[in-house]
Amino acid sequence: MTRVEQVMQAIRQRIAARLLPSGAKLPSIRSFAEIMATSKSTVVDAYDRLAAEGLIQSRRGSGFFVAGHLAPLTLAEIGPKLDHAIDPLWVSRTSLDANDGMLKPGCGWLPASWMPEDGIRRALRALARSNSSTLTDYASPLGLQPLRQLLSRRLGEHGIEVSTNQIMLTDSGTQAIDLLCRFLIEPGDTVIVDDPCYFNFHALLKAHRANVVSVPYTPNGPDIELFAQALKSHCPRLYISNSALQNPTGAALSPLTAHRILKLAELHNLSIVEDDIFADFEHEPAPRLAAFDGLNQVVHIGSFSKSISASLRCGFIAARQDWINGLIDLRIATSFGGNRMGAELVLFMLKEGGYRKHMDGLRTQLARSMGDTITRLKALDIVPWNEPRGGMLLWCRLPDGIDAAEIAKYGLEKGVVFAPGNVFSQSQTANSYMRFNVAQCGNSRIFDVLSEAIAVQATSANA
Amino acid sequence: MTRVEQVMQAIRQRIAARLLPSGAKLPSIRSFAEIMATSKSTVVDAYDRLAAEGLIQSRRGSGFFVAGHLAPLTLAEIGPKLDHAIDPLWVSRTSLDANDGMLKPGCGWLPASWMPEDGIRRALRALARSNSSTLTDYASPLGLQPLRQLLSRRLGEHGIEVSTNQIMLTDSGTQAIDLLCRFLIEPGDTVIVDDPCYFNFHALLKAHRANVVSVPYTPNGPDIELFAQALKSHCPRLYISNSALQNPTGAALSPLTAHRILKLAELHNLSIVEDDIFADFEHEPAPRLAAFDGLNQVVHIGSFSKSISASLRCGFIAARQDWINGLIDLRIATSFGGNRMGAELVLFMLKEGGYRKHMDGLRTQLARSMGDTITRLKALDIVPWNEPRGGMLLWCRLPDGIDAAEIAKYGLEKGVVFAPGNVFSQSQTANSYMRFNVAQCGNSRIFDVLSEAIAVQATSANA
Repeated sequence: MTRVEQVMQAIRQRIAARLLPSGAKLPSIRSFAEIMATSKSTVVDAYDRLAAEGLIQSRRGSGFFVAGHLAPLTLAEIGPKLDHAIDPLWVSRTSLDANDGMLKPGCGWLPASWMPEDGIRRALRALARSNSSTLTDYASPLGLQPLRQLLSRRLGEHGIEVSTNQIMLTDSGTQAIDLLCRFLIEPGDTVIVDDPCYFNFHALLKAHRANVVSVPYTPNGPDIELFAQALKSHCPRLYISNSALQNPTGAALSPLTAHRILKLAELHNLSIVEDDIFADFEHEPAPRLAAFDGLNQVVHIGSFSKSISASLRCGFIAARQDWINGLIDLRIATSFGGNRMGAELVLFMLKEGGYRKHMDGLRTQLARSMGDTITRLKALDIVPWNEPRGGMLLWCRLPDGIDAAEIAKYGLEKGVVFAPGNVFSQSQTANSYMRFNVAQCGNSRIFDVLSEAIAVQATSANA
Repeated sequence: MTRVEQVMQAIRQRIAARLLPSGAKLPSIRSFAEIMATSKSTVVDAYDRLAAEGLIQSRRGSGFFVAGHLAPLTLAEIGPKLDHAIDPLWVSRTSLDANDGMLKPGCGWLPASWMPEDGIRRALRALARSNSSTLTDYASPLGLQPLRQLLSRRLGEHGIEVSTNQIMLTDSGTQAIDLLCRFLIEPGDTVIVDDPCYFNFHALLKAHRANVVSVPYTPNGPDIELFAQALKSHCPRLYISNSALQNPTGAALSPLTAHRILKLAELHNLSIVEDDIFADFEHEPAPRLAAFDGLNQVVHIGSFSKSISASLRCGFIAARQDWINGLIDLRIATSFGGNRMGAELVLFMLKEGGYRKHMDGLRTQLARSMGDTITRLKALDIVPWNEPRGGMLLWCRLPDGIDAAEIAKYGLEKGVVFAPGNVFSQSQTANSYMRFNVAQCGNSRIFDVLSEAIAVQATSANA
C-alpha cells in the first residue's frame, strides 16, 4: 500500500466508524500529515482522490468535509462479509420466512402444535370480554401492573428480589436487550458475548455499532480466565449472556463461575444483561446472576415467546430503579406505548390458562425428544458437546472434517433449515458444530438429509 | 474562560458528542495543541485536570484515553434541561400514566368510548378461532401478507403506488420512524422538523443523538424560504413531517409547497419520512409527498393506534425496495418477530370489522366536537391558529401575556393534563399556544380550570 493509500484508508476508517460523521470537517492537511507522519503533499493527494470518489468534498477556503449524504448503511454492510450460510441475519430471515413445507431443525422455537393453543384461545375470548380501555387505550409506561406483580413474585421464587416498579414490560426479549443496549452502550463500546452464543446477539450488537469480543463458553459458563483477560484488555462495558439453558448449548453457569463473574464485573464496573427466556424450561434451577448481585450491575430479562406464543409479543426487564426510570423515557421515545393486549393475554395464561401444567408437560415431552434426537444423531457420528440441562437446544460436534456451513447449504436445497456452528461464533471457530432443536427433529427426513450431506462431503474429500 | 478551560471544554464536547467514544485515544498533546492553536503545556494541564476528574485516563507510555465507564446517559440528560411542564418526555409519561380520574385535553388520542370496541371484540373472537400457527408462531419478516396487500390497495387510493413487498409491518408508527432513523441517520446528523411538530419527534431524535433543526410551520406547510435556507445551512439528511392533518395544527401541505419541498429534497439529497397516522381522519384528501415522489426519497408510514386501538400495536412502512431490504435486517436484529396477532386483528377490522363505517361516524362526531370546542375556547379568548382540516387536534393562541407552561402546571394540580405549546416547539417560541384534543374536551370542568388558570395569571400580572 502506498503512503497515499494509507492516508486514504485512515480517513475511510474514521468515516466508517463515524468518528468523522457526515458534514464533519476533515483534519487540516498539516495536522493530518503530522498524525500520519507523512508529507503534506501525500495528504493533499489522498484528500483529492477521496474527493474525486465523492466521499469528501472540498469547500473553497475552508477545507475538506465529509460528504453529507452517504447511502444508508445496511447491517449487512457493517463488519466482515459472511457467507449466507453462516450470516446470522440471513439465517434469521430464512427461519422466519420458511414456509410450512420446510423442516426447521435449526430454528430456536417450538412447533406450533407444542404450544398452549387452547389456553391462548381461552385468553383471547376472555380479552374479548374486557373493558373498552383494555381493548383500545395505550399501555401505561411500565406496562400492566398485575402482570408486573406476578412477575415480581415469580422472580422471587428464583431468588431475585425485585419490586413491581423495577419491572418494565417490553414487546419481546429482543426489544428488552435492544433498549438496554441503547441505554448502556454507545457506538464503539466493547461488549462481551459467549462463543458460541445466540446468533441474534451478533446482529443486534452490529445494529448498535458495538465492538464485540467473545469468550469461549465451557459447560460451566464462560472460560473464567479468558473472561478476566478480556476485561483487562478490552475494557468492555457490557456482557450479554444466558445464565441457565444457554443458547445454543443448553449449559448453565456453575455457582463458582457465577460468583467469579460478579467479582470481576464489580472490579471492572461491567454491566451484565442476563437473558433468561428459557427460564421455565429448566428441570433444576441454575444460579442466576441477578439473584447474587441484587440487580446492582445485572439486568434480568425474559419473555414468553418460547413458552406461550411468539405471535403475541411480551417480554420484560427487571433492573435497578434508576435504570428503569431512564429506560421508560427511551421506551416511550422509541415505541410510545407497549403491547397492552399481549400483556393481558400473558397475564391470563399465567393465572388461569394452565401455564404451569403446560410447562410440566412440555418439559417431559422435550426430555423424551432430547433422548430420541441424541440417539439418532449419534448413529450419524454426530455427538453432543454436553448434556443439556433441559430445553430444546442441543449443540453437537460433527464427524471429523465435516463442514457445518456446507451441510446448511445442502439442507436448504432439500428444504431443511439447519443452524451451522459459525452462526453462533464471533470467532468463527465453530464450523464443526451445529445446533439442533430437538422439538423440531421429529421428522426422520431431517436425518436422511443430514446423512446424505455428510456422505457427499466425505465422498468429495476422498475424491 | 482560561486557555486550559477552553481545551478542557473542547475535549468534553468531543466526548459528549461521542466523537471520542469510551476507550478512544485522545489526540496527542502536540497535535491537539496545534488544533487548538495553543501551547503544549496548556494541553498537558488540561489533560491532567480531566484525568483528575476521571473523564480520561492516562496509560503510561501510550497517552490518554477516554475513561471506559461513564454512567448510562438518560434521555433527560441529553440537550438542554427543560422545565417538566414543557419537557416532551415528561408530558408523554404523564399522559400515558394519567389515571381514569384525570381529564386529558392535551393528549393525542381518542377516549376509549370513541373507539370501535365492538369490532375489536369480534376480531378477538375471530382470532380465537384461527389456526395454531397464527396463534403461536413468529410473524414473517415483512409481516402478514394479506394485510400488506390491503394496505397496498389503500395507499393506491391516495395515489401512492406501492407493491406488497415494499410494505413492512411494524408494531407502531413510532417504531416505524425509529427504525427509519436507525437506517437513515447517524449520531450527529441533522434532521429537520416542523415548528411546531409532534412532541415525540423531539424525544425520538434525542434518542438518536440527532442535531434537530426546526422550520416554522405555516397553514400551507413549512415556510418554504426558511426550509430552503435550512437545507443550505445545515445539510440535513432527513425531514420528518405529517403531510395531512399535521400534528399539532391539523393543517396540510398545499400542492405548491409539496412540489417545492420535493424539488429541494432532490437537489439536496434529503430523505423524507411522511408520517400519515391521521390519514383516515381527513374529510378531503391532501397531497401526499409519497404520491408525487413515487417513494424515491420519501418514506410513507402509518398506524392504527388512533383509529382502531392503541392497545394492539400495528403500524407500517412503505418505502423503496432496497430500503425495505435493509430495514428487514434491522427489524429482526432489534425486535426479531413482529406483532402477528396485532396484524391479524387490524386485518379483520379493515375487512369485516366495519372500519369504514366507524371512521365515517368518527369524522362526523369529531367535526361536531371541533365546533363545540372552538366556541368554548373563544369564550375564553383562546383562538384557533387555523381552521383544522379534520381530525381531533386544535392549535390555539392564548390571550396576550398568558403563559402556556403555567397553565399546564396549574392544570396538573387540578387533575387536568394540558399540552403547552413549547412541548411542540424546538425553538421554544410557542409558549402562547396550546394544543387541544377536541375529542377529550367534552367535560366542562376543563374550561373551568382553563378559565381559573388564566384568571390567576392575569391577576398576578396586574398585582
